[in-house]
Amino acid sequence: MKRLFGIDQWKIKESALNREDFRLAESMMSLGNGHMGMRGNFEETYSGDHHQGSYIAGVWYPDKTRVGWWKNGYPHYFGKVINSIHYIGVRILIDGVELDLNTANLLDYYRELDMQHGVLTRRFTVRHKEKITEFEVIRFLSIADHELAVIKYTATAKNYQGEITFIPYLDGDVRNEDSNYEEDFWLEISRGVKDFQGHLVMKTKDNPFGTPTFQIAAKMKLAIDGDIQSISYNQKEEYIDNTLVVSLKENHPVTLYKYVAVTTDRDYQNFELLEKADTVLKRAMEKGFDPLFSEHKAEWLKRWDICDIEIKGDEEAQQGIRFNLFQLFSTYYGEDAQLNIGPKGFTGEKYGGATYWDTEAYALPLYLATAKPEVARNLLVYRYNQLKGAYHNAKQQGLKGALYPMVTFNGIECHNEWEITFEEIHRNGAIAYAIYNYVNYTGDKSYLHEKGIDVLTGIARFFADRVHYHKKKDQYMIHGVTGPNEYENNVNNNWYTNLMARWTLKYTLEVIEIIKASGYEKRVQELKITEQEVKKWNDIIEKMYLPYDEELRVFVQHDTFLDKELMTVDHLSPEERPINQKWSWDKILRSCFIKQADVLQGLYFLNHEFTREEKERNFDFYEPMTVHESSLSPSVHAILGAELGKEEKAYEMYQRTARLDLDNYNNDTEDGLHITSMTGAWLAIVQGFAGMRTAYETLSFAPFVPKAWDSYTFKIVYRGHFMKINVTQKDVFISQEGNELAIKLYDEEIQLPANGEIKVSLKR
Amino acid sequence: MKRLFGIDQWKIKESALNREDFRLAESMMSLGNGHMGMRGNFEETYSGDHHQGSYIAGVWYPDKTRVGWWKNGYPHYFGKVINSIHYIGVRILIDGVELDLNTANLLDYYRELDMQHGVLTRRFTVRHKEKITEFEVIRFLSIADHELAVIKYTATAKNYQGEITFIPYLDGDVRNEDSNYEEDFWLEISRGVKDFQGHLVMKTKDNPFGTPTFQIAAKMKLAIDGDIQSISYNQKEEYIDNTLVVSLKENHPVTLYKYVAVTTDRDYQNFELLEKADTVLKRAMEKGFDPLFSEHKAEWLKRWDICDIEIKGDEEAQQGIRFNLFQLFSTYYGEDAQLNIGPKGFTGEKYGGATYWDTEAYALPLYLATAKPEVARNLLVYRYNQLKGAYHNAKQQGLKGALYPMVTFNGIECHNEWEITFEEIHRNGAIAYAIYNYVNYTGDKSYLHEKGIDVLTGIARFFADRVHYHKKKDQYMIHGVTGPNEYENNVNNNWYTNLMARWTLKYTLEVIEIIKASGYEKRVQELKITEQEVKKWNDIIEKMYLPYDEELRVFVQHDTFLDKELMTVDHLSPEERPINQKWSWDKILRSCFIKQADVLQGLYFLNHEFTREEKERNFDFYEPMTVHESSLSPSVHAILGAELGKEEKAYEMYQRTARLDLDNYNNDTEDGLHITSMTGAWLAIVQGFAGMRTAYETLSFAPFVPKAWDSYTFKIVYRGHFMKINVTQKDVFISQEGNELAIKLYDEEIQLPANGEIKVSLKR
Repeated sequence: MKRLFGIDQWKIKESALNREDFRLAESMMSLGNGHMGMRGNFEETYSGDHHQGSYIAGVWYPDKTRVGWWKNGYPHYFGKVINSIHYIGVRILIDGVELDLNTANLLDYYRELDMQHGVLTRRFTVRHKEKITEFEVIRFLSIADHELAVIKYTATAKNYQGEITFIPYLDGDVRNEDSNYEEDFWLEISRGVKDFQGHLVMKTKDNPFGTPTFQIAAKMKLAIDGDIQSISYNQKEEYIDNTLVVSLKENHPVTLYKYVAVTTDRDYQNFELLEKADTVLKRAMEKGFDPLFSEHKAEWLKRWDICDIEIKGDEEAQQGIRFNLFQLFSTYYGEDAQLNIGPKGFTGEKYGGATYWDTEAYALPLYLATAKPEVARNLLVYRYNQLKGAYHNAKQQGLKGALYPMVTFNGIECHNEWEITFEEIHRNGAIAYAIYNYVNYTGDKSYLHEKGIDVLTGIARFFADRVHYHKKKDQYMIHGVTGPNEYENNVNNNWYTNLMARWTLKYTLEVIEIIKASGYEKRVQELKITEQEVKKWNDIIEKMYLPYDEELRVFVQHDTFLDKELMTVDHLSPEERPINQKWSWDKILRSCFIKQADVLQGLYFLNHEFTREEKERNFDFYEPMTVHESSLSPSVHAILGAELGKEEKAYEMYQRTARLDLDNYNNDTEDGLHITSMTGAWLAIVQGFAGMRTAYETLSFAPFVPKAWDSYTFKIVYRGHFMKINVTQKDVFISQEGNELAIKLYDEEIQLPANGEIKVSLKR
Repeated sequence: MKRLFGIDQWKIKESALNREDFRLAESMMSLGNGHMGMRGNFEETYSGDHHQGSYIAGVWYPDKTRVGWWKNGYPHYFGKVINSIHYIGVRILIDGVELDLNTANLLDYYRELDMQHGVLTRRFTVRHKEKITEFEVIRFLSIADHELAVIKYTATAKNYQGEITFIPYLDGDVRNEDSNYEEDFWLEISRGVKDFQGHLVMKTKDNPFGTPTFQIAAKMKLAIDGDIQSISYNQKEEYIDNTLVVSLKENHPVTLYKYVAVTTDRDYQNFELLEKADTVLKRAMEKGFDPLFSEHKAEWLKRWDICDIEIKGDEEAQQGIRFNLFQLFSTYYGEDAQLNIGPKGFTGEKYGGATYWDTEAYALPLYLATAKPEVARNLLVYRYNQLKGAYHNAKQQGLKGALYPMVTFNGIECHNEWEITFEEIHRNGAIAYAIYNYVNYTGDKSYLHEKGIDVLTGIARFFADRVHYHKKKDQYMIHGVTGPNEYENNVNNNWYTNLMARWTLKYTLEVIEIIKASGYEKRVQELKITEQEVKKWNDIIEKMYLPYDEELRVFVQHDTFLDKELMTVDHLSPEERPINQKWSWDKILRSCFIKQADVLQGLYFLNHEFTREEKERNFDFYEPMTVHESSLSPSVHAILGAELGKEEKAYEMYQRTARLDLDNYNNDTEDGLHITSMTGAWLAIVQGFAGMRTAYETLSFAPFVPKAWDSYTFKIVYRGHFMKINVTQKDVFISQEGNELAIKLYDEEIQLPANGEIKVSLKR
């Protein structure tokens, strides 16, 4: 754990320049607006260690696979979010001396990320010889106008007069730090520059894998508030700039405004890119900085109005949840069914790919509850659109049906680690589960016959082919898998995988009945689901082997798990943790220690199908062996812990998930933020502390408040009802806008009056 | 299977230029003399696809590790045999036109590898416009003078007069095709050239891993038999040549002799390299081509005199065994304890490393029987010298004792695939077994207290720490391993691994007693083997879990193996084979198919500890599921098959091992020959068909002759006895030079008279 930033309800604040943890701070100060985003890089030159990264949603490149030992079936490329035109850059010279905070004599330094308004601000004072200069730099990526980035760069000479040179530029010569073969992915298509403006148009290189190329344009317009002495411009391959020399008078601020529009051929025709950028810039210049700033901030306030969680009595917790929500919504706000929630969003390059099963397993519930139903639907449609790729993946492995990829941009698998790529097939179950979850939450059954059944059938067929029948035991088994706990590889009969495979077959059969009942039998025929197939599925459902230990009365994580030397995490010394950084991989594999919820993931997903005793027994058995070294781990444990009345454990887990990046728990935030895990804090509060469930199409709660808190309040949208839940140490208040609604509270049915509020005493 | 070469008892013959399979032919035509070697490259320019490779024993480079996903504990470099100075090159111009067999109009073409004499010869005729020229090129790497390579290049104009230009050169600008990051491993130290001679001195680059660099020198001297018109020389960075223009008269052969000496700082001081090369060349020039050629050939005849196996009635089999012996002895003849038998010898680059467990498991028996005892001892000493590295490897994994590496040059592991590197720990058992095998064969017990006990103790300590105790079952287990069958990864309680771990502990305790009994108790004290430790070892020996199925009465390959869908190989269609090229890796892992002997490897090693019924039952169970896709597989099955009277199966397996490369069974010979597997054919005949065993310090035989053969004859050295075993379809003849010797034949004791012969009727 490393806490570099001050505690504040709405801000991430840094009051000293942390040169050693510069990358960590860059990750934390990331900005995004769904269309584009970047790490918290400085505008001006910084000669110290840093990672300059600027990314555009949906713009990726197929990087040639790099492995030590090729395994048959590996994909040929690994799709990566690519670093693109560096458009925030502004070099600064004071009387000809370049400003570089790595070497400058800093009298003071302050940086803040204002999460309430989506603004990054820096203020610092530099002394060079006797000259003291104050700076203020404001940056935002507009969420009112997604293609627009705005920078306001102000300098004030405190005790001298002289000149400042602003060199705002666009630089297309960028690389991915994690490229496999240090390749450059970009080509310049065109560039242009004149006084107060310039542009670059870049295109991703052709590739041998036949994936589409992308074209992007960045255009800047400049304005100066001050006394311009001279202006000139430069250009070279993949680069353009303006050089603006401005007089500095003592205590007279001068300001550069840099407006940048970024357009891509994901939205327009190639030939339109510059024209569209011009339109954006024209609009911006006409409005000017202050109105642009105001409309951007107003949009963020609107978002918070729907999704904010207020925590009284614990500022750390408050900051944690807001940071997570802020970064999530900076990454994805559901506008585009072609996009998804990448594991690092716009904050880093590690992992590549646009989507993991995290989206379905962890992110969907949040978007269901805090955004319009179309947003969650878009997340499902994303997978529907990639069904062809999923069929391709299964075929690559010699199997029927559809296997959704571990990592992808287009549905085709691009991960390359056999024990994950080929074996972590439980991901398919999460894709199916998301459909169930969506329908159950929204009541929108039309999705099932429109699109859901295609996806479910593909997945069901995959599982039905992937099992094998054990004659002697008269059971179906699934050998050679990796479960959610990636600290076990290539195991047999992972309980969770077998459970979700069986559940998927069962749910698919249910959905077929629903579709038939609603008059869409034709869809079933189109999919050529035969009686024989249904019979086989039923046989698998009936005879699926689910390892269980009679003596311990627990579900067994996988065959032979109980043959291990079982011990709890408290037997580990602090020097050994995290074990994934301290132990040799084989030692991790043979140990009993669990990376993230595995059996418990099943108890979370199919929560309504298990008894409290089953949950308790398995939680008590598995959680103490869990090292929570996946960012996805704590939230599930917080939720189940809360359900089982283990309030302290639930709170401990909340803290880990809410402040994972803020406190750099896993010591890897410098690589980027754990975006897809950021829903964990929301889940821990809403499904954990407040006990929200939606099974059987019924909304229910069973709230408690962690001891350390006075109260918390959150809002959700449920089937057109805008609800606010406020939980204090004494009472639960639930209010809503909408018609009367039957809900459950602590297992009792309650009628929530139309546009009204109820108040119930806290039960726990 | 692909047969490009004619059948001949002593030769590999090629009578057409196979441009498409050029690399395959290059592998087959490799030459080596223990000190250096090369693929069968052409001397002159060849513009078609080829792999020019020339290697020097013990000269390697630590190539930076390349993996897709880093696992904790991975080594930082992968040691590779490196392509070094290309010293055979001779460019040829006929009247100014470059000779290039890829584009030339070839009237005839012939290439042969004469295995009896270690000579590569090419003869071909080229027509350019109306001019017809005949060529003969002879090359050998002297085994009478290991640092010397000799080329005799003769051209004859058949129907014209003109001129031929010979451009013999040395080229140090070479790369490894398989380098991880396309790095150049070499630097030039010096070069020099004048008329009729030139040299290059090269050094491997400094590396960040602290492994030693190597320096090598190549020096050439030239002679011409013909009418020289002009001579000049050229040089550039890492390159020197001579340009010799010689008159061509109709039907008058002209010849270039190129003598090259290659010296390394493995043998001399840096400053001596050129001087030593000069000495070699001076000796060579004084003798001249014919005497050099004769003495080289005579040495090969001497080798054959000791090791040849003669097969009557089956030329294919005859060619197979000789090819294997020829290539093995070209790679390693046991002169240097710092060297070992690399998997590709001097014939390719794949796999890297100098040694695998193949050496101990498969190569040692052959060197024990066909060379001086020092040779086999040197193979053991090699591991003794690397014990420190083995301790390092175990420590990297957080374990006690010594873990011999999967691949290495210096004892430190450089393989990087977790399921192999970290988990294929049975290799340690083979290292221990080799000591047992050596002592048992030679009777040389002094090795045990001098060096063997150190190695055994290190390995025993590793195994004793690697097991874990299962309280409930009161048994020791070994989880998370890969057995010899690499088509199963990360399994629990691999029967073979557990067996060899237990055996090693048992044997180590026996050796401790032997050492004590022979008065070297001090060695045991030095190694700090405590009573407590011995007690623990005994406990493990007593309680080691060895999976066994009561119903099938077979040893179970590993836990849950019997839960698979079991089927025999004949259920696979030809299109599916080899499965490692046709199936996705996960499918291979879940299938029951076995790559190479696993349970059966245990029955081979500890052959004397199992009953015939046990062997039979397990052979009949496992062999039909075995796809033999490792080059190490057929020999063990040939041996066990022969023992069990399955003569046809044994013969089928012999054919696969003997002609693996000759017939390109695994479709990968273009990458180089399967050098370490080449002992397989010898093992199949000697331990298989002739049933030779040496357990309990007793030499025994139980011969049969494959139906297709008339007879076979082989020679072995056993404890100072030079023996010849000749097996016909009627009789077994065993003769020897040496004192009277008690042996067993078909389980009966027989006295072999001093310097005499016995004859017994064939029993099977």
